[in-house]
Amino acid sequence: MIEPKNYNFSNVKFFSPMQLSEHYALYTKYIDCLNKVNVDLKQNNIYSDCNQNYSNIRSAQKSKSFCCDAIKLHELYFENLTGNNTNISGPMEKIVKDVFGTYDNFLDKFKCIAMSMRGWVLFCYDKYNKEYYIYGQDSHDDGVMLYAEPLIVLDVYEHSYMIDYGINRSLYIDAFLENLDFGVVNKRLNSLLF
Amino acid sequence: MIEPKNYNFSNVKFFSPMQLSEHYALYTKYIDCLNKVNVDLKQNNIYSDCNQNYSNIRSAQKSKSFCCDAIKLHELYFENLTGNNTNISGPMEKIVKDVFGTYDNFLDKFKCIAMSMRGWVLFCYDKYNKEYYIYGQDSHDDGVMLYAEPLIVLDVYEHSYMIDYGINRSLYIDAFLENLDFGVVNKRLNSLLF
Amino acid sequence: MIEPKNYNFSNVKFFSPMQLSEHYALYTKYIDCLNKVNVDLKQNNIYSDCNQNYSNIRSAQKSKSFCCDAIKLHELYFENLTGNNTNISGPMEKIVKDVFGTYDNFLDKFKCIAMSMRGWVLFCYDKYNKEYYIYGQDSHDDGVMLYAEPLIVLDVYEHSYMIDYGINRSLYIDAFLENLDFGVVNKRLNSLLF
Amino acid sequence: MIEPKNYNFSNVKFFSPMQLSEHYALYTKYIDCLNKVNVDLKQNNIYSDCNQNYSNIRSAQKSKSFCCDAIKLHELYFENLTGNNTNISGPMEKIVKDVFGTYDNFLDKFKCIAMSMRGWVLFCYDKYNKEYYIYGQDSHDDGVMLYAEPLIVLDVYEHSYMIDYGINRSLYIDAFLENLDFGVVNKRLNSLLF
Repeated sequence: MIEPKNYNFSNVKFFSPMQLSEHYALYTKYIDCLNKVNVDLKQNNIYSDCNQNYSNIRSAQKSKSFCCDAIKLHELYFENLTGNNTNISGPMEKIVKDVFGTYDNFLDKFKCIAMSMRGWVLFCYDKYNKEYYIYGQDSHDDGVMLYAEPLIVLDVYEHSYMIDYGINRSLYIDAFLENLDFGVVNKRLNSLLF
Repeated sequence: MIEPKNYNFSNVKFFSPMQLSEHYALYTKYIDCLNKVNVDLKQNNIYSDCNQNYSNIRSAQKSKSFCCDAIKLHELYFENLTGNNTNISGPMEKIVKDVFGTYDNFLDKFKCIAMSMRGWVLFCYDKYNKEYYIYGQDSHDDGVMLYAEPLIVLDVYEHSYMIDYGINRSLYIDAFLENLDFGVVNKRLNSLLF
Repeated sequence: MIEPKNYNFSNVKFFSPMQLSEHYALYTKYIDCLNKVNVDLKQNNIYSDCNQNYSNIRSAQKSKSFCCDAIKLHELYFENLTGNNTNISGPMEKIVKDVFGTYDNFLDKFKCIAMSMRGWVLFCYDKYNKEYYIYGQDSHDDGVMLYAEPLIVLDVYEHSYMIDYGINRSLYIDAFLENLDFGVVNKRLNSLLF
Repeated sequence: MIEPKNYNFSNVKFFSPMQLSEHYALYTKYIDCLNKVNVDLKQNNIYSDCNQNYSNIRSAQKSKSFCCDAIKLHELYFENLTGNNTNISGPMEKIVKDVFGTYDNFLDKFKCIAMSMRGWVLFCYDKYNKEYYIYGQDSHDDGVMLYAEPLIVLDVYEHSYMIDYGINRSLYIDAFLENLDFGVVNKRLNSLLF
């Protein structure tokens, strides 16, 4: 059984306790889902009907990727949303300079992609192609990049900002960026590089 | 610019040259796609309209994940479809025994999930949750598991079997398994473990 | 050019002006989208590259169904959300009795489907199969039923309730049902039957 | 219980019996699926768990739209694929002239959209917006246009052509257009107009 992790949002600015707690509650539901799916996948009889149009195994598979990706992405998101270490620094600063020239150029592209997609935006290292890039997803498991190593993870589902910002996603993205923890980002980067 | 890789299918049984060459031709189109997307993402003006309902950046992002995942998955598939080293052995044999008890049990579950999904079935190591499991995808970028390390990759898109097998996907899956290269699978496993 | 329609929410209970106005603003963005798509589809040069992995015509087609369905569904939703004529009556009452036995039985099923889906729930008449049923969609254009004649339309996107209800969708569905205008529903039904 | 309809392909040119019979067999599987879904939706206990991440009601809803749309679209496709009445004529000729100027212009646009999408392309009358247009879908139930009245229906799933044409979809579209029955198209149009 997977258990939800705990996060400390006490230094997070521009997010209401209601927005954060409702979002966290949603995350725990994905954990309930994955635990239930994993129990069902342990039953042998679920493998007795493998119909591609309608079957329990198909339903379990669809929910497995949806909930499992949702859990990973939410944990990565909550983890890098702390309000601490909010100035770019260390290896991340170097990579941004190498790939984007300036941090402002990175921010322009990151925000634009975050505005244009319906689920998530990530800055990642792609182990397969050995390059750094920003990419977006339309849902938890639609648009996921195989072999991506997430460095920055931003939720752009409507549930992540509507309580505080209504449909003004642009303000929410700015708020996220003001709280982004580069200590966490650099830690992710260091675990990759060394 | 990414270039298509070459594969040697000379020992592959139960697949016609037509099926394999049409499939390979499709793979090269995904490479054309990703190259074109990457050129467009280098243009600054694509970031001037970030509309979430309709914009060039949105279109490029949708195609980036679709084509980039398609390339990776097809390369993993072609790579493990050789007709060589077709007996389970080495670290893969040990893991299958640990996780599934018997190889027959693994095969039953792998085939069932492969029948029930519309795009891909993978046996993977999940780095995040530190476990081995089979999972399925409905398209190249729908259902991808973040942090998955693919060990066995089977294409179940209709394009992978219809020329040879019509709608008889079950026969195709058997044919794939007769050609699965455990040397490749063990190499993937070894690069993970050590 | 399509223009947004106007709706009178003055008798709608349990919805804040903020929730309703943000939702309406979102609807106007779908109209902007469709107008832009339709302009682009009138240009001959958009038909010069028909690539199935990445092309402007593909992008326009994806946005056309998304925005066009979003407009139709939102107009149907706003139209039946008035707070007037909130008691079931007329032909709708008869059909519910014939198909579901009791209105409570209908409500139980409608609410359950509304809880289980991510985009929309509709009670419709299916002209092709000549039957009445409830069905759900996961997005504006995913799960749409061809030949459906919508009778009751409920938005269950997170944007339709999070400002007022956080993640408590159940309360929102109850609030919607308290405001459902059976005069509108019966009018839709009458235009079908006669 | 829904039963599969029968179609007479004896005058259809450029399609092999194998391609047509495999395609028809696939269609019967969607009917099996919908019949099974409809049985399950009649059980009261399916409405006892309404979880939006993983539940039987969710699974049944996903399969209902997928299989129900698949059936309708396949029937419309098989019905207009006869090899009879293959010259444009009657009300369809007039509408094409009014909307597209020439039939060649219509064909260029229809073929381009058919090349760019992954599931279906339709020429339809949109009852809601009161206009005629071509549009494409990526799967049976993704991209369906609410209130569309289908006039011409072309399957572009890989299963519809790979046996005969490999990945050469362009040749397949031409073959379809050589077999398109304008008698059927005009009948659909007449049932709309009068």
